[in-house]
Amino acid sequence: MNPVVKPLPLSGMRITDRFFAPRIDLVRTQMLPYQWEALNDLLEDTEPSHCIENFRLAAGISRGEYHGMVFQDSDLYKWLEAVAYQLSVTPDPALREAADSAIRLIVQAQAPDGYLNTYYQTHPEEKRFSNLQNNHELYCAGHLIEAAVAFARNVGDTRLLSVACRFADLIDRTFGPEEGKLHGYPGHEIIEMALVRLFRQTGEKRYLMLARYFIDRRGQAPLYFEEEARRDGNRSFIWNETYMRYQYYQAGKPVREQTAAEGHAVRAMYLYSGMADVSAETDDPSLLEACRALFDNMASRRMYITGAIGSTHIGEAFTYDYDLPNDAVYGETCAQIGLCFFARRMLNAQMDGRYADVLERALYNSVLSGMSLDAKRFFYVNPLEVVPEACEKDDRLRHVKPRRQKWFSCACCPPNLARLLGSLPSYAFSAGDDTLYMHLFISGDVCAALAHTEVRLSVESEYPWDGRIRLAVHTPGQYGIAVRIPGWCRGYELKVNGESVPSEPVSGYIELNRLWRENDIVGLDLEMPVLLMRANPAVREDAGKLCVVRGPLVYCLEEADNGSGLHLLRLPLNTVFEVRDEPQLLGGIRTIRCRAFRESRSFAEGQLYAPACRADETAETQLTFIPYFAWANRAPGEMAVWIREI
Amino acid sequence: MNPVVKPLPLSGMRITDRFFAPRIDLVRTQMLPYQWEALNDLLEDTEPSHCIENFRLAAGISRGEYHGMVFQDSDLYKWLEAVAYQLSVTPDPALREAADSAIRLIVQAQAPDGYLNTYYQTHPEEKRFSNLQNNHELYCAGHLIEAAVAFARNVGDTRLLSVACRFADLIDRTFGPEEGKLHGYPGHEIIEMALVRLFRQTGEKRYLMLARYFIDRRGQAPLYFEEEARRDGNRSFIWNETYMRYQYYQAGKPVREQTAAEGHAVRAMYLYSGMADVSAETDDPSLLEACRALFDNMASRRMYITGAIGSTHIGEAFTYDYDLPNDAVYGETCAQIGLCFFARRMLNAQMDGRYADVLERALYNSVLSGMSLDAKRFFYVNPLEVVPEACEKDDRLRHVKPRRQKWFSCACCPPNLARLLGSLPSYAFSAGDDTLYMHLFISGDVCAALAHTEVRLSVESEYPWDGRIRLAVHTPGQYGIAVRIPGWCRGYELKVNGESVPSEPVSGYIELNRLWRENDIVGLDLEMPVLLMRANPAVREDAGKLCVVRGPLVYCLEEADNGSGLHLLRLPLNTVFEVRDEPQLLGGIRTIRCRAFRESRSFAEGQLYAPACRADETAETQLTFIPYFAWANRAPGEMAVWIREI
Repeated sequence: MNPVVKPLPLSGMRITDRFFAPRIDLVRTQMLPYQWEALNDLLEDTEPSHCIENFRLAAGISRGEYHGMVFQDSDLYKWLEAVAYQLSVTPDPALREAADSAIRLIVQAQAPDGYLNTYYQTHPEEKRFSNLQNNHELYCAGHLIEAAVAFARNVGDTRLLSVACRFADLIDRTFGPEEGKLHGYPGHEIIEMALVRLFRQTGEKRYLMLARYFIDRRGQAPLYFEEEARRDGNRSFIWNETYMRYQYYQAGKPVREQTAAEGHAVRAMYLYSGMADVSAETDDPSLLEACRALFDNMASRRMYITGAIGSTHIGEAFTYDYDLPNDAVYGETCAQIGLCFFARRMLNAQMDGRYADVLERALYNSVLSGMSLDAKRFFYVNPLEVVPEACEKDDRLRHVKPRRQKWFSCACCPPNLARLLGSLPSYAFSAGDDTLYMHLFISGDVCAALAHTEVRLSVESEYPWDGRIRLAVHTPGQYGIAVRIPGWCRGYELKVNGESVPSEPVSGYIELNRLWRENDIVGLDLEMPVLLMRANPAVREDAGKLCVVRGPLVYCLEEADNGSGLHLLRLPLNTVFEVRDEPQLLGGIRTIRCRAFRESRSFAEGQLYAPACRADETAETQLTFIPYFAWANRAPGEMAVWIREI
Repeated sequence: MNPVVKPLPLSGMRITDRFFAPRIDLVRTQMLPYQWEALNDLLEDTEPSHCIENFRLAAGISRGEYHGMVFQDSDLYKWLEAVAYQLSVTPDPALREAADSAIRLIVQAQAPDGYLNTYYQTHPEEKRFSNLQNNHELYCAGHLIEAAVAFARNVGDTRLLSVACRFADLIDRTFGPEEGKLHGYPGHEIIEMALVRLFRQTGEKRYLMLARYFIDRRGQAPLYFEEEARRDGNRSFIWNETYMRYQYYQAGKPVREQTAAEGHAVRAMYLYSGMADVSAETDDPSLLEACRALFDNMASRRMYITGAIGSTHIGEAFTYDYDLPNDAVYGETCAQIGLCFFARRMLNAQMDGRYADVLERALYNSVLSGMSLDAKRFFYVNPLEVVPEACEKDDRLRHVKPRRQKWFSCACCPPNLARLLGSLPSYAFSAGDDTLYMHLFISGDVCAALAHTEVRLSVESEYPWDGRIRLAVHTPGQYGIAVRIPGWCRGYELKVNGESVPSEPVSGYIELNRLWRENDIVGLDLEMPVLLMRANPAVREDAGKLCVVRGPLVYCLEEADNGSGLHLLRLPLNTVFEVRDEPQLLGGIRTIRCRAFRESRSFAEGQLYAPACRADETAETQLTFIPYFAWANRAPGEMAVWIREI
């Protein structure tokens, strides 16, 4: 069974959004060319990636040794996927040519039997598929497939698809329930959702069945990874000493018995996305139910207010309910991107605004914070509280950086950002049989295929700065337009052609099903006051603290605006906020200012502890909050999202 | 030059203190016999120590392989030192016999040339003194010397002293400035202070000069450890990737240029103690000045309110100024014991109550917390905030335990506790030429040799529960008695024979120099109200929090008395405290009760963040605080020292 509701294809929307369009342009004009240079070891001040060179080795064009991570291939595949999205929207001969050379190289590198992994091809002494838990062959295959489908679908170039199918066929001959096949599954998931995509592109059901096999087999006793580790004296099982153990890979128990988001956060998101995909294509309610439980656990107990996930750097992983340290957080950019993947799938499986709320929260905050405003520097880790001295001197916080990096030896996040930003239309809209769903308020021109109608409309707004959204209908006829009322919104007005439409959202959406005329205008006005948020009292790290939000944006304090010692600032609950449009600041943002207090207790020189004789001494002060996504674009300094309440 | 002021020898005081005497008894009747069994691998439910067996291997009595840490020998030496202290006070034939067999074994194990280290003696393929930074030969030698001097001085048994001198002579032939000698120094300090002790015991100046050499050479360019690491391709330099690097060993720069307490906290304390010793014996003001700067940095910026030191488990080390996380703290019991060593030496070098304040703070809080009330279980790490679930599930807190352990594979802390508790007289009193100094208020009968007088007196108090202290003078004559006025004390009265003596403390001491008559009574009444303390505003972790103290004791909340969710409790500054004597609770303590508030905010099921519409909702509640040293003697649960202020 195919799902009734499908995300909009990229070709279905031309994005004109004043917030996102420049960022997408930066992906094309800055990020992707920069990454291409990185992949080709042309950057002078960063460690060489060796990614392209590894493919040249595998293709027999170069001689030398493999370098880089064991999953280095995936960097090129992710780059190619992102390029495919860009080329589908904007012609770019230079990118097209670069991609073309990359594809030709990949075609050359593929082994005659279809196998393709430059690490193993340059290490013939190591046995293929012998260390699934660590060595990422199936992960790289998954990214190859994703890139291949993206190129076939969006650029009409099927050379990579042929490569991907040949490799997928080999994997299908290698893995499966039949005797003589390996009964394993990937240590790092992604091939599950990639295979579903390949099935959708090619119609070949074997790919779907293989995805289902990987998911169903995962965590079944006897544990495949345990057997694998036993063969090499447990050397490959590097998570033995942690609390997670096999749940690091989400492989400690069958997926349908997993009820809490556990282990490596990116892997978890990719697995859950694959589960949602397989559930959608095979009509498997038990799998969807597992996805729902996992999503609920994560969104209600293990997610930062910025949408960041992964509370610890140990295993880049989830920890336990309500454990959300702001300074030691991991919050890998890729994990939040994976969360967008997962949320989008859940949204299309079950049209519920909760999923879109989480998607929007992650996208506008802890995904976008992963890149600098000029798209040239990146965060791997997205903390909610930073003291630069701590990052420098506290080895427990070594993973937290007060400034973005140019590139990483494990360069997963930058191309993942490019993939996500290049495919925003599929997150903004979904098409049902008779209804077009608007999830995100991104301006642009939409052309969506419902079951019997091709619907064209355009969206115009200043989101996320303003809650005034206008849809202009271009296709007359009887069909539904469902608009999301965000979970953060406490008051809104919906109008058609200026006339109020009184209605309550159902599961976060108001559906207007009517006979539309050309140039009908749907007006949605979302109230967007500044709000002070509290965390659930079970979140120890946020006890007694408040967070400033406005609309979908989480705000933070930076030292650049507020001086150092942010932990001494205290917000009164009744403070009055002023929202100020600052087109010149940080690429054009709205700041939030308010009155607050700064503790000014005087301690004698050298005094570490002293009796508390008086109530807190405080001095009034003025604070300036900026959107979280825009932090760390000035001189490095302190940053804080959660501020003490007075 | 010998220092003018010396700590009281053990023979100079019979402790009758109702707080400490039972604990010292437990050391003799419980800890030392238990540790003897541990050293002999006779405990059933703990990993074998193999310590004695290693000596048997080295002595050629047994055959087999060395097991245990590379510094396993030190466990036996520390045990012997603690036994010596006990035997000097209380005859104990069983302990004496056990010690005797241990000493005979050590004599047998010593190599003909005087070398003694069972690891190297059982690994003849490894070269002696070739890996000073990691392999602890000089550390074990230091503990051997300490035990040897303790036995010679306190028991009159000099067999171990002969062993120690022969080994010290070999070390002296091996290390030193002369060409052909090694220009190195220990990776783990202690031999410096041990050699000074050996010099004091034997009068042999070479030992003092060797101690001075180790200290003066340390951290001089070119770095010895750097050269050592270079020889084995940096394999031995395991702290390369940390912020500390060679300062992990306090060996990154010359000791006189070190101004901040850095690196492994136990090593730091042992080094600084040795520096203070060498400074005292060589009249080296630059060395004393370095000690003072290091002490000041530590006590005013890097010490917990419990006296715990070492903010991170990475390297069991100091981090940076004001970084004092309550949950992730290390606070190794041995580090606080080392702090007592250091503080005592500073106190005798410069009679200043600041040193005694720190000594007392550590002793009554984060040293004593290292052992259970029955002296059968031990903490390595002494946290100020514990949530058992976090200790179990957060791999970053794996070093923090919510309950004490029976024994450790690295069993340094239990015998160190036994050493310290067995030598309390030397911490309680010092003797100057004409003045007896009372630092700690420990009841007992004292006999101290001043320059021209042997002074006898007795002390009686219910300290730390009560501030009423009485000294009865038994030796008539003209001399001084200096009593410490603790830094925590805000009001006191000093009387002689019931008559007030108006006086102000000088550097924390009031000296009464007069013609004493027999049975003169000095009465010191220290006000001991419950105080709420704040940390310096620069301590981010304690912002907005209060700590309850009374006299020298830091108090804490335990789940057993106050339920779970301690982070939701809030203390009003004006709360009224009730001190309650509870002889049946936790071995007899005084609890502190007060009115406080518990946040009772209601969050919808599944809601992780919500707008803060109202001020905090709180419900009045009653809290019961217990002394920090007594925590974790009931069912495991939450514990907190710092409580949020309302």
